[in-house]
Amino acid sequence: MGKFTPTPRTTLKRLPERGEYDREAVYEIIDEGFICHVAFVVEGQPYAIPTAYGRSGDTLYLHGSAASRMMRSLSGGIPVCVTVTLVDGLVLARSAFHHSINYRSVVMLGTAIKVEEMEEKSAAFNIFMEHVIPGRWAEVRLPTEQELKATTVLALPLVEVSAKVRTGPPKDDEEDLAFPVWAGVLPLRMMVQPPIDDPALPPEIKAPAYVMNYER
Amino acid sequence: MGKFTPTPRTTLKRLPERGEYDREAVYEIIDEGFICHVAFVVEGQPYAIPTAYGRSGDTLYLHGSAASRMMRSLSGGIPVCVTVTLVDGLVLARSAFHHSINYRSVVMLGTAIKVEEMEEKSAAFNIFMEHVIPGRWAEVRLPTEQELKATTVLALPLVEVSAKVRTGPPKDDEEDLAFPVWAGVLPLRMMVQPPIDDPALPPEIKAPAYVMNYER
Repeated sequence: MGKFTPTPRTTLKRLPERGEYDREAVYEIIDEGFICHVAFVVEGQPYAIPTAYGRSGDTLYLHGSAASRMMRSLSGGIPVCVTVTLVDGLVLARSAFHHSINYRSVVMLGTAIKVEEMEEKSAAFNIFMEHVIPGRWAEVRLPTEQELKATTVLALPLVEVSAKVRTGPPKDDEEDLAFPVWAGVLPLRMMVQPPIDDPALPPEIKAPAYVMNYER
Repeated sequence: MGKFTPTPRTTLKRLPERGEYDREAVYEIIDEGFICHVAFVVEGQPYAIPTAYGRSGDTLYLHGSAASRMMRSLSGGIPVCVTVTLVDGLVLARSAFHHSINYRSVVMLGTAIKVEEMEEKSAAFNIFMEHVIPGRWAEVRLPTEQELKATTVLALPLVEVSAKVRTGPPKDDEEDLAFPVWAGVLPLRMMVQPPIDDPALPPEIKAPAYVMNYER
């Protein structure tokens, strides 16, 4: 799949060893997550707003109510940054200074394009849902034309993209290694709890396998 | 503790029932998380960058290498948005359209102030660490003056702040309630895995209780 070309805006100057431009590695991070933060500017004020996303090939799809400030602003074709962050653990060093977090994050820069065509919009709905919970799309009541119209779908071409990854144990200074305190990593993971039936659900409808066995 | 005063920028126009301005409720969300996304603008391009944070009273503290682009940019006193997002579950409706995410997020707008005074900087280090892992600060090798100097600490006064919260089951349209598909919530939670010793750790040093019993 090749590599993303680093630009001055996506080149890590500090700690360049944490930079990742390999397309396959970057897409693995994007596909493990499903919530991103979208940064955009309205009247000089930047906002970072969480939202769900889906990916298909070299395109990231965002969606939201056509009435939302974020969707209306981004539809105008303004610069955007979409960031996906996975937190993998706390890194507990001997020195306060070298404490850190193990994480994988992807930063995507560019300008999103509003998807106007109904078929591509419907396909994007499918992509979102299969991204968040594979298997669901085949079972649900599909969107009507009116619902598609009430939703804005944005496509961000994945061109100016970089990932940043920290893994492994703490990196204490040599002279701190004898400091008598526990050091290591405390791994964190997003876990799934047992599903909760909708109160209006008829008791004969059981949660399907793709819900019962869901994990990320 | 009272309420934050909504401004035009923090007033939810759509779905106002999801807005939360109660200071205590907002601080509960901030205190449950430890990773935020910081949105800021450099040369017309917005960025959303993940980082750890701490809170003390009505101040949010950020920190990072004095050499980092984010810290250098924010030290200049530019508008910033800090967002904390906790993801609580997938909301699986009968219709594709009404699928959603249960989440709690806080958006903080303002201008961060660079903390120059060494004692406040040192106190901020303490606040970060106690926010991320209570009990740790008392055990670690404390920061030297040189380490404090290499770190930029920013204080964001919590004034223009709002939270957005979605909880509970899916909200399908009345006419979809008979659609024969499972509906409900799939709860998600950040879970802690067993700690991993640093490879250089002497075997007689065991992980302390605040590590073994860590949860968020």
